[in-house]
Amino acid sequence: MLGVLGGMGPLASAQFMLRLTLLTPALRDQDHIPAVLWSDPRVPDRTAARIAGGEDPLPALLRGIRGLEAAGATAIAIPCNTAHGWFEAMQAATALPILHIVDAAEAELRRQGVTPGPIGLMGTAGTLAMRLYQGRLDSRGWTCLTPTAEEMDRLVTPGITLVKANDVAGAYSPLAEAARLLIARGARAVVLGCTEIPLGIAAGPVLPFPVCDTIDGLARAAIARCHPPA
Amino acid sequence: MLGVLGGMGPLASAQFMLRLTLLTPALRDQDHIPAVLWSDPRVPDRTAARIAGGEDPLPALLRGIRGLEAAGATAIAIPCNTAHGWFEAMQAATALPILHIVDAAEAELRRQGVTPGPIGLMGTAGTLAMRLYQGRLDSRGWTCLTPTAEEMDRLVTPGITLVKANDVAGAYSPLAEAARLLIARGARAVVLGCTEIPLGIAAGPVLPFPVCDTIDGLARAAIARCHPPA
Repeated sequence: MLGVLGGMGPLASAQFMLRLTLLTPALRDQDHIPAVLWSDPRVPDRTAARIAGGEDPLPALLRGIRGLEAAGATAIAIPCNTAHGWFEAMQAATALPILHIVDAAEAELRRQGVTPGPIGLMGTAGTLAMRLYQGRLDSRGWTCLTPTAEEMDRLVTPGITLVKANDVAGAYSPLAEAARLLIARGARAVVLGCTEIPLGIAAGPVLPFPVCDTIDGLARAAIARCHPPA
Repeated sequence: MLGVLGGMGPLASAQFMLRLTLLTPALRDQDHIPAVLWSDPRVPDRTAARIAGGEDPLPALLRGIRGLEAAGATAIAIPCNTAHGWFEAMQAATALPILHIVDAAEAELRRQGVTPGPIGLMGTAGTLAMRLYQGRLDSRGWTCLTPTAEEMDRLVTPGITLVKANDVAGAYSPLAEAARLLIARGARAVVLGCTEIPLGIAAGPVLPFPVCDTIDGLARAAIARCHPPA
């Protein structure tokens, strides 16, 4: 049974459940993967914790992991990139394997035919400050181009905030512009490295370059591990 | 914390989580309702159990309720109409209040301005055979018009099966035709009384008469009970 540590944000984890279902080869209910979603939107803001001295989210993350363990989960997926800043602490606290969203994103890039080289990386200010992607991908031949501080303040951070307030349509334009600027700077593809971003990007015209949806990437990684159900 | 007994089917319960989130007034993660979704698609088929002597789903339903209790749920929503055939047995087995999807559907009809009178009712063969809606709504002034046996076999049951196999686009045409036939017979609105049906109906042109989406209705009932979060 797949355990999903969600609620960060709740729309992204609901979308993860939807994509997990739609990407699973199935003809009837019983072919689908049993899953428990722990959707606790009260987890303290991950970016504020990392860059502004906000409340530590780790105790709330561990409460969710305990809940998933009690429910009988055998593997854990976390559809929130920034929460992976606490990945090692979470993995040390549980015997269940936790899928890593950056590895899932890399697999999703390769699935789309994107090979190591310069890629654009959009994410929360916390994800970028922690170098979550660079720390894992630099040694594998990828180079991450990131938005400037001005682009983060004007485009990416406001776009993520709009999705968390349910305004996916309003989020499209700033998020799409930030992605375009990374391509103009030499990126071969853009990683939507915050699970709110694909929701905004899906709300408007398809972008004319490869984008890596980290919700879909994590869903595919979970299906590869858990399907077919026992 | 809202407990969601889902997986019946998994796409419907993922959509329930999405609609629960989108219909909640929220400006940030922490304004959303904490929820645990128990999505176990292995629950034996409810319609087969009721009309064809299939395996009893009650033990699996009660396992889910125990899981939600253990996770700390304080109220339960079940985004599967047919499972409400076991409502009394489930409610007798837990101290947590279970929202009833038929009451939620009635509230959704009234919200849309539909007053008691003749309505169309689409659902699984199990839901219709158990008279889940009629048993609760007849005494309140509603009269349920249902598809003929031929329409069930040709349109409604195949449409539901297509959604469970992830083919929502293919499900639109048979489900929309069944709804139109109920309106032609005098229904003022059509209740989509199986949580797979709104997924198929949403995959094509909007129908030119009121439809009651039981996923949205149940989401609104859950929000009324659980928002704002404690």
